[in-house]
Amino acid sequence: MKDPVHFWYEFASTYSYLSAMRIEAVADAAGAQLVWRPFLLGPIFAEQGWNDSPFNIYPTKGRYMWRDLERLCDEYALDFSRPSVFPRNGLRAARIACIAADEGWCAELTRAVFVANFAEDREISDTGVLAEILTDLGRDSATVIEASDAPTNKERLRAQTEEAKHHGIFGAPSFTVGKELFWGNDRLGAAIAWSLGLR
Amino acid sequence: MKDPVHFWYEFASTYSYLSAMRIEAVADAAGAQLVWRPFLLGPIFAEQGWNDSPFNIYPTKGRYMWRDLERLCDEYALDFSRPSVFPRNGLRAARIACIAADEGWCAELTRAVFVANFAEDREISDTGVLAEILTDLGRDSATVIEASDAPTNKERLRAQTEEAKHHGIFGAPSFTVGKELFWGNDRLGAAIAWSLGLR
Repeated sequence: MKDPVHFWYEFASTYSYLSAMRIEAVADAAGAQLVWRPFLLGPIFAEQGWNDSPFNIYPTKGRYMWRDLERLCDEYALDFSRPSVFPRNGLRAARIACIAADEGWCAELTRAVFVANFAEDREISDTGVLAEILTDLGRDSATVIEASDAPTNKERLRAQTEEAKHHGIFGAPSFTVGKELFWGNDRLGAAIAWSLGLR
Repeated sequence: MKDPVHFWYEFASTYSYLSAMRIEAVADAAGAQLVWRPFLLGPIFAEQGWNDSPFNIYPTKGRYMWRDLERLCDEYALDFSRPSVFPRNGLRAARIACIAADEGWCAELTRAVFVANFAEDREISDTGVLAEILTDLGRDSATVIEASDAPTNKERLRAQTEEAKHHGIFGAPSFTVGKELFWGNDRLGAAIAWSLGLR
């Protein structure tokens, strides 16, 4: 009996980029079931008293993170270009990801948005950039963006962020398997192993 | 040409326990040279505005850490008993570790102190507990404790903590190889690989 791995990610999050680009391949190879769970870190950080990324609030930690990310992108053979704006607002992209999750194209949308932010330094909070990404994926961008702005979809993302809080999630990426929580790109493998009953 | 791995640890730090118990075996197996570097997190956390462990300041993160630690202790087959006091003051133990480093028995002293704190729930800030640990290691506890309290040795630990800051260290465990910094028990393997030129 395999429990699915829920992958909780935020489009502004550097380490979420690392997980988003490889989790589908890893899960497929392992035979694990994957659920894509975009959410927002902003409301969660706000409860910890932060109104910015902790990597900006604590510059020593931030300097380390950018170097660590560079090393890990080398290791995973991922393109990387340090974004000129950090963190970027992932709200619109996350709303679109909710639509994509319903329609079964969340994996490709998610990877495209992360590549735009962390490999191409594009402004993913900009509706024009998001429309281009959608068009490149063969989607009708106007229809998708309109659907993403519907009150029910906005509420859906809010509810998903609340659900993240109830799981005890405090950063991204996170992975849940039933009630078991794993935090950070470094735990991707452990979460998948847990979902396969290797515990 | 191999650069040594410097292992920076704090006796109060949970994830330092995980690294301290296995780093010598891992380094020996890989043929990497290891330098034991006790330091204090307190002065570094104070500069970030924290007067307690971030795991206490941010309870959601703390709850996760204890569960994660339990899982990792299972994985590494390490004894674990959640300390009734956290974080414990590692000052005296770190001063003793400076003496032990000079005399070539830092590895065994370090493991014994970590086991006392995280497997046996003993008060490692207590001189009596430290004397017992030293005696169990076959050391003259009175002589070692007196030497650890000498002004030059106190200064040595202060200097080592300053050196940690200059490396950009913001948490424990950390590993340095030349100017390259690795943070966290999860990076132990990466630090050793770096020291072997696998970069």
